[in-house]
Amino acid sequence: MLSHCMKRFRICCVTRSIQTHTGNRHKTTACLSEEDPDPTRALLQLCVDGHYVAPGQVHSDLLQRGMCCNYGPLGLELKTTLLEQWWRSVKRSRSTQVFGISTPLQTHHRTSGEEGDPLVVDVKILNQLLLDAEELSKAQIIQRIQTLLRLSTSLRTNLLQGALEQYSSWVELVNRRLPFGLAESGLSVQPLDGSRGEATHTSLVWFCSPQSSSQWLDHWTRLRLRWWRKFALAPSEFSSRDVPEKELQGCASRGVKIVYSFPWGQETLENLWSLGDSELLQTYDGVRAKIQCRDGRKLVIPHVVSVVSNMDRGMMAYMHNSLQLLKKHDGKQKLYQSQRKVLKLHPVLAPVKVALEMGRGATLELRQVCEGLLQELLEAGVSAWPGYMDTTSSSMEQLNTKYDQMGVLFTVVIDDKTLESGLLQVRSRDSTVRELKHVSEVTGFVRRYVRGAHNM
Amino acid sequence: MLSHCMKRFRICCVTRSIQTHTGNRHKTTACLSEEDPDPTRALLQLCVDGHYVAPGQVHSDLLQRGMCCNYGPLGLELKTTLLEQWWRSVKRSRSTQVFGISTPLQTHHRTSGEEGDPLVVDVKILNQLLLDAEELSKAQIIQRIQTLLRLSTSLRTNLLQGALEQYSSWVELVNRRLPFGLAESGLSVQPLDGSRGEATHTSLVWFCSPQSSSQWLDHWTRLRLRWWRKFALAPSEFSSRDVPEKELQGCASRGVKIVYSFPWGQETLENLWSLGDSELLQTYDGVRAKIQCRDGRKLVIPHVVSVVSNMDRGMMAYMHNSLQLLKKHDGKQKLYQSQRKVLKLHPVLAPVKVALEMGRGATLELRQVCEGLLQELLEAGVSAWPGYMDTTSSSMEQLNTKYDQMGVLFTVVIDDKTLESGLLQVRSRDSTVRELKHVSEVTGFVRRYVRGAHNM
Repeated sequence: MLSHCMKRFRICCVTRSIQTHTGNRHKTTACLSEEDPDPTRALLQLCVDGHYVAPGQVHSDLLQRGMCCNYGPLGLELKTTLLEQWWRSVKRSRSTQVFGISTPLQTHHRTSGEEGDPLVVDVKILNQLLLDAEELSKAQIIQRIQTLLRLSTSLRTNLLQGALEQYSSWVELVNRRLPFGLAESGLSVQPLDGSRGEATHTSLVWFCSPQSSSQWLDHWTRLRLRWWRKFALAPSEFSSRDVPEKELQGCASRGVKIVYSFPWGQETLENLWSLGDSELLQTYDGVRAKIQCRDGRKLVIPHVVSVVSNMDRGMMAYMHNSLQLLKKHDGKQKLYQSQRKVLKLHPVLAPVKVALEMGRGATLELRQVCEGLLQELLEAGVSAWPGYMDTTSSSMEQLNTKYDQMGVLFTVVIDDKTLESGLLQVRSRDSTVRELKHVSEVTGFVRRYVRGAHNM
Repeated sequence: MLSHCMKRFRICCVTRSIQTHTGNRHKTTACLSEEDPDPTRALLQLCVDGHYVAPGQVHSDLLQRGMCCNYGPLGLELKTTLLEQWWRSVKRSRSTQVFGISTPLQTHHRTSGEEGDPLVVDVKILNQLLLDAEELSKAQIIQRIQTLLRLSTSLRTNLLQGALEQYSSWVELVNRRLPFGLAESGLSVQPLDGSRGEATHTSLVWFCSPQSSSQWLDHWTRLRLRWWRKFALAPSEFSSRDVPEKELQGCASRGVKIVYSFPWGQETLENLWSLGDSELLQTYDGVRAKIQCRDGRKLVIPHVVSVVSNMDRGMMAYMHNSLQLLKKHDGKQKLYQSQRKVLKLHPVLAPVKVALEMGRGATLELRQVCEGLLQELLEAGVSAWPGYMDTTSSSMEQLNTKYDQMGVLFTVVIDDKTLESGLLQVRSRDSTVRELKHVSEVTGFVRRYVRGAHNM
């Protein structure tokens, strides 16, 4: 049903049977639009309109650069779900010897290799220094700066170093048997225009026998690429590529990147590095006894494979990947109607599974039904949007447009017929088909739908 | 079953029917121990032994002070579950108009009231300044410090300011109708011994009509205290108290604290403040049009109720609250045996629901059964501990002691009988009863057990 006619924006041609809300069926050929003049702008605008990101250029800019910004309710939900899915996948992978850890953002001691990490200092000392500057000698100023440094902490710029430092605490959990992994998700500070931003990283630091590290790199690359593609509408826009030898940094002997093709170019979602044993030896000052593990009967220094992804950028990739721009036109007359934007996020990722709306009928009674159903959905862990609370009058057409842009899976309309028969209208985002269902069936139906999509 | 004989440590006397693993029942009076000589040390040691926190004094110290430390797999799981439960509770509360948001740790502009926030600066500029100091004039040094300041960012010390700044972005979502709330969880930087640590906060910023703010403060206090107590073994150790008027800070007109009685004294888990409208007006430079909301037919400036909890300290409270120290002795002979520590975390909170162990039998086949069951449990979202991977030989007694200290709900032993009949032994942490169950029933049984405890 979906074909890629153009590289920069997904365009496709579908023949679809649409059941209108009066129940009549009529056939429509929906031919999807020519290339958007500025797909980047359109995407960022959709992030704001769909309540994924707070309004304001600064937030869209940060997001485009793979940084944390001010997320709205849908953006937060999407990022949370992505992180949950990541945790599920690392814990359930072939080897279950993956332990979750959590390390603080700040460290008080600076270890080698972290000399460039940003420092957190006391603003009061700095301000006082500037106030007193006139009366202080140069030596006194220097002394104050040294005090400032002594009381400073470092902010982490990656999750790798924390995991390496934690290695010795958890290696006994596996009786020093390889392989095993330490997984963590959290914020890392990143350089941004001479200053700093932050990104949500996930990190798996995998400790394995020296001979197997290259195979493990391949294993994790396969698994991770499959994971990214699993939730994609157009999986081919996620791809992996080896890092050329001359671009390898530090002690990496091999590297792979998982990249996504954004309208503004390819960006790295995930870095996989085969790091050998030098980082681990460095962290433990070369004391081999502390880090040795058993590989069969031999004692070895584990090799490290590091798998790091940027989930802020990952979120943006899925937003772009699932956005479909459709221009409906009537086959013969070529009469272009307004553009339809649908955010076809994977059912598992869609931050709102069900939007609840009220149709015609006795407001008070309908509201009670809405509230009951909302509560039922939330209890069952199905995220729902209480659209009925919004009292500005909108047509069903306008509501559908709004919810399609938010990526809402199903829109439920409760009206006077619901009060009579218990039946309500359920519209699917993906098929645009409207069906009648009994109010008692909705929660189960949506749960099964999402679970089904998950197991696909 | 549980009585508080001593304030500083829970001590109780139980008569319990224990079914031994041979199936015989014999009655035992387990009289629980005298006061532990150093309950704080015992608690912190348990956090380390149970893989909640990394070994090392520094981590235990941080945790005791309500700060983030290096969490191990069980600590991370417990904190994640607490945060999940918090999100569920705020989203499902009577009013569902709570929107989740996420704001960055760092801000580039400094707003009023944040003058004391710690600064993030570029370590390279600072180091270079010290290197060049001899050749620089005083004026040049000052100039460099000013450059450093210009490129600096502020680190947040609370989640309130971010929510207030986001208010104008999301108030339209509710058509400027009160009440509604903005919820967020994340790290905040906290002062620690002249330097800084960080704590995991949850924050609900509740915007309501001026007349109702005091009622809302009471409403949220009730709800939050009920939430804390819901997961407690000894609920009375969680309590709330009004903040005396003379201790109110800033623009708070009323305040309530939810506190927990630790062995080292009472500590605040949650602060609830009724803040009036001044913080909001200040954030928007007094531009009333930006912040006005409808209260019925009137336009009003919303009052703010802030509900902030520290989940690192909350975690520690539950660890302490659920730890039972039992000294078993035989009724007549008063023969004291070794102390038994059981971490009776609420079934919903217990980070490991099932530990899988191998008994006697053909190792290869048993391992396959273990792996199959582990996979099934993980697929069903039941956290499981692959104890069978640990090849050091331990007696069942030792394993039970270990898993009781970890707070593992059920220990499953798979042995040669499992291969014959599909039956395995399931031991409950709380009743210490061992039951035979079919391998196909385990996952469903544990899920129902946890769900049942949740709905209690």
